[in-house]
Amino acid sequence: MKIADRIRCLRREMEREGIDIYIVPSADYHGSEYVGEYFKTRQYLTGFTGSAGTAVFTRDKAGLWTDGRYFIQAEEQLKETGVRLFRMGEPDIDTIEEFFEKELPEGGVIGFDGRVMGLAEGMRYSEIAEKKGGSVQPLYDLAGRFWKDRPPIPAEPVYLLDEVYTGEGVSSKLQRVREKMESVNADVHLLSSLDDIAWLFNIRGNDVAFCPVVLAFALIDEKGGRIFTDAEKFPEDVVKMLEENQISICPYESVYQAAEELSDRRILLDPVRTNYALYHSIPRTAEIIKKENPSILMKCVKNDTEAENIRRAHRKDGIAHTKFLYWLKKNIGKIPITELTAARKLEEFRAEQEGFLGPSFAPISAAGAHGAIVHYSATEESDTELKEGELYLSDTGGHYLEGSTDITRTVALGDIPEDQKKHFTLVARAMLRLSDAVFLHGSSGVTLDALAREVFWKERLNFNHGTGHGVGYLLNIHEPPINFRWREGSRPAQIFEENMVITDEPGIYIEGSHGIRLENELLVRRDTENEYGQFLRFEVLTFVPVDLDALLPGCMTEEEREMLNTYHRKVYEQISPYLNEEEKSWLRHAVRPI
Amino acid sequence: MKIADRIRCLRREMEREGIDIYIVPSADYHGSEYVGEYFKTRQYLTGFTGSAGTAVFTRDKAGLWTDGRYFIQAEEQLKETGVRLFRMGEPDIDTIEEFFEKELPEGGVIGFDGRVMGLAEGMRYSEIAEKKGGSVQPLYDLAGRFWKDRPPIPAEPVYLLDEVYTGEGVSSKLQRVREKMESVNADVHLLSSLDDIAWLFNIRGNDVAFCPVVLAFALIDEKGGRIFTDAEKFPEDVVKMLEENQISICPYESVYQAAEELSDRRILLDPVRTNYALYHSIPRTAEIIKKENPSILMKCVKNDTEAENIRRAHRKDGIAHTKFLYWLKKNIGKIPITELTAARKLEEFRAEQEGFLGPSFAPISAAGAHGAIVHYSATEESDTELKEGELYLSDTGGHYLEGSTDITRTVALGDIPEDQKKHFTLVARAMLRLSDAVFLHGSSGVTLDALAREVFWKERLNFNHGTGHGVGYLLNIHEPPINFRWREGSRPAQIFEENMVITDEPGIYIEGSHGIRLENELLVRRDTENEYGQFLRFEVLTFVPVDLDALLPGCMTEEEREMLNTYHRKVYEQISPYLNEEEKSWLRHAVRPI
Repeated sequence: MKIADRIRCLRREMEREGIDIYIVPSADYHGSEYVGEYFKTRQYLTGFTGSAGTAVFTRDKAGLWTDGRYFIQAEEQLKETGVRLFRMGEPDIDTIEEFFEKELPEGGVIGFDGRVMGLAEGMRYSEIAEKKGGSVQPLYDLAGRFWKDRPPIPAEPVYLLDEVYTGEGVSSKLQRVREKMESVNADVHLLSSLDDIAWLFNIRGNDVAFCPVVLAFALIDEKGGRIFTDAEKFPEDVVKMLEENQISICPYESVYQAAEELSDRRILLDPVRTNYALYHSIPRTAEIIKKENPSILMKCVKNDTEAENIRRAHRKDGIAHTKFLYWLKKNIGKIPITELTAARKLEEFRAEQEGFLGPSFAPISAAGAHGAIVHYSATEESDTELKEGELYLSDTGGHYLEGSTDITRTVALGDIPEDQKKHFTLVARAMLRLSDAVFLHGSSGVTLDALAREVFWKERLNFNHGTGHGVGYLLNIHEPPINFRWREGSRPAQIFEENMVITDEPGIYIEGSHGIRLENELLVRRDTENEYGQFLRFEVLTFVPVDLDALLPGCMTEEEREMLNTYHRKVYEQISPYLNEEEKSWLRHAVRPI
Repeated sequence: MKIADRIRCLRREMEREGIDIYIVPSADYHGSEYVGEYFKTRQYLTGFTGSAGTAVFTRDKAGLWTDGRYFIQAEEQLKETGVRLFRMGEPDIDTIEEFFEKELPEGGVIGFDGRVMGLAEGMRYSEIAEKKGGSVQPLYDLAGRFWKDRPPIPAEPVYLLDEVYTGEGVSSKLQRVREKMESVNADVHLLSSLDDIAWLFNIRGNDVAFCPVVLAFALIDEKGGRIFTDAEKFPEDVVKMLEENQISICPYESVYQAAEELSDRRILLDPVRTNYALYHSIPRTAEIIKKENPSILMKCVKNDTEAENIRRAHRKDGIAHTKFLYWLKKNIGKIPITELTAARKLEEFRAEQEGFLGPSFAPISAAGAHGAIVHYSATEESDTELKEGELYLSDTGGHYLEGSTDITRTVALGDIPEDQKKHFTLVARAMLRLSDAVFLHGSSGVTLDALAREVFWKERLNFNHGTGHGVGYLLNIHEPPINFRWREGSRPAQIFEENMVITDEPGIYIEGSHGIRLENELLVRRDTENEYGQFLRFEVLTFVPVDLDALLPGCMTEEEREMLNTYHRKVYEQISPYLNEEEKSWLRHAVRPI
């Protein structure tokens, strides 16, 4: 079926159900960052394949709202579909809400599948409908009625992650969650976010690309609980472990029925991580305690076992990455290397490492000007040869049983222009200054961000992304609640605690010319405690050389050069024992003091 | 009357009114930082003269809650009064609320004068009383009944600040406030904060020490308004100007009656800046719109006339301060100089400047170890001679018609120990780095604070005060809503806008040994605007040398030395034309490049 036919089918269903405007967001039932193929309804109805975007259909109009990362791609993919692109954030472009206020007739009905709609977003639409004397109809997955070749809901096998890796058993984690429930006077906790569920039950799966999670909901009460999921994918050892913890397995979709039966209970749930339909299934007699899932913070603070494993994962990743850099530097200009073959080569080096499970996100492998496209993803069509005289940016990572990694290196292929070296040096200085921070307990990512960004601001430059994000342990590569950002949000940012893991990844992007990003991961460590309080600092987890061929040491302060030399000494110590003589001798030169 | 007798009188009145616990905060009717003598009821009842503290009386107990700045002083002053000191912030010390929960009998009554009680604080007490089945009695100023020699409510003459100084007429300011009222759908604005009222009506007075404000409330409506104040202190030109703006003058205490008559109105008021009694005078049929006073932000963003005047005030202040430093350096060890005589000398130099109206706050003049007491105030008893071999810290400021200043300099008297020089150098580096910041519009004081504080944190040091505060224009020296702080608050900090004025004042305090603080004032200025946004930077307003005798240039980066040299070049340019030859030749040496 063509896109236009699909939309025609959708409108037929809208008419049948008396819906005036139908919304299709880019989400699964769990508000995940990445979603399985089954959930790509927005893509099915519009043809737009980007990861972020919301489609809206009236009886005679169709629109897609997406952000600046995807304007070019969306423009291309929406051609001849009849779907209009709404460029979010541009002046004079209606927001979805403004569009609704214009297009919804008096007494009209806004429809959506409440299971894929975030609670807050759905409530906003509900308010607009009410203002017009209308209502929302959150019950129907209209596209599901005519989407013939829809991929099935993923049902990949589940496995138990051993305590050797997790450092904490399920009963202990449940106990900690129950203590939090008690402290807010809740007797039930309804949990929807997939990484929280995977963490809590020490399970991993493969239901979402790059995210080793299991599609499931969970309901924890004072003594036991239920997981709502596909029981068939759970092996015996997991079932047994769950039984030992009084956790039973119920069918995935029965969570809505279970929610309906929660009358008179005091339910802890996370309004940011609960879908509209599930929230509205809860009877009005229940008391809903809206708080962040307790597991968000617990999962972010790694235990010592996890921290030690993560160090191992990073050593493996550093070995693979260093071998790759040597291979690249040696072969560039001699054999043809493209963005895709380079990415494949790096993955091969990773695959040589024990316990490697796969990439932790879609790799970014960008030559020359492609580096300036922050979320560039090489395709067969865009794939470009790596050329001497250009920069090459690679932002990749791996899942290991010992944790997940996220590394970016930008390297000079042959001789690169002076202005690119200047920019490279700025990025390196920013990364080093941030990772060298010492700070008092109570500091957040907002407290520290300027240590990196001031280097750019002094040159009247900036980068339009955060300087860092939390990283999951064999889970989501972007893990809340920590990050580095310069602007305060509406709520204060999470303060740093020992054993949190965060990336440090400043960059610079010159459209049509080059893009540079360097990314190390950092582990928060305890430092001195004295009359001023508890000091903290970062332990750098990533051990991969920073390309001295792209660096201008004369544009760094003595302090910054010393930071880099110290870092490079550690890279050599950590990585060289695992290299052959040729690689080792290259590394020795690559990390020479400057 | 002795303190004990006063408390006995208070208890008699408590009994008469059926009050079980009576609270006396340190406030006037307007939540001012400094209060007039009339309002020092807490001091009258306990003998404790510190600026911050709350006294609580039960039928048989008396307590005073104050913070770390005042522990030593309070301990001393409360001796033999029967009033117990509660050291706020120390472990195992009850908060006032905890004390109430223990001491209030079931069904008991908490009493206070609602006019001197902040709304939020009063509401907290009210909740505690309710939990015990009791109530609050907010109507009585019990001490007023027996305080025989109570000073009168201040009634100092009011004057109009010319538009040459304010840069904006009252009708224009009223119009801007009314636009804000309209935007939040308010038809009345009730204003209690004295600096907002002085700013809005371009009036100044002398009702509060160091704060040139006028005791008054204001009620602004869509066309005119009322000022509730002592009409007698208003000269004809002010009355005429007010009449032209349809503003009438009503008796000070009649504001409560006026509030009672606001039924069915939509009232904009600032819950942080409205007293408990006034808030509760408003009828329930009124709609109360709780927002920050619009004048808070308007007043913080100086106009170009004010900015230009402020530069002039700072030049005058820089001249006075530089002459003082020369005098001090020349005479130390030759004539006896004490903390009090030094402070007086500095004020004399300021008084030589045209348009000087008086000190902008109680001067801090601290020799040697006294410098480590952050809020030290020299008295006849504590007054100490300035000695060679020690540091001397002076934190002072002046009110001029062209604005208010706040400057701190710490100087070496003769040769000082190496560790003190190291600390001095840290403080200088932090101040310079912060004032040299370039930042994107959207940054707040939290974004930038680490630029100063990281210097200390790297040495596992810190200072327990903010790095800077906003400064009023011939108004309060601490002016909201901007500041430099490293910890995020519960709400995001105000972002910086062009023409805001803020201090930059890092410090270090080693108890029993020495204290160092350096403080410049900064003006936010527009810089480049490009694809990354609007860049801002700081213009330094303060021109007084940083004492090179206390500095170790070898402990600074080249970049930092250049910042200081650039600053010192400007000090010489700005100040030297106003000095005699002897002073000029000293200054030339004092600002020599390092």
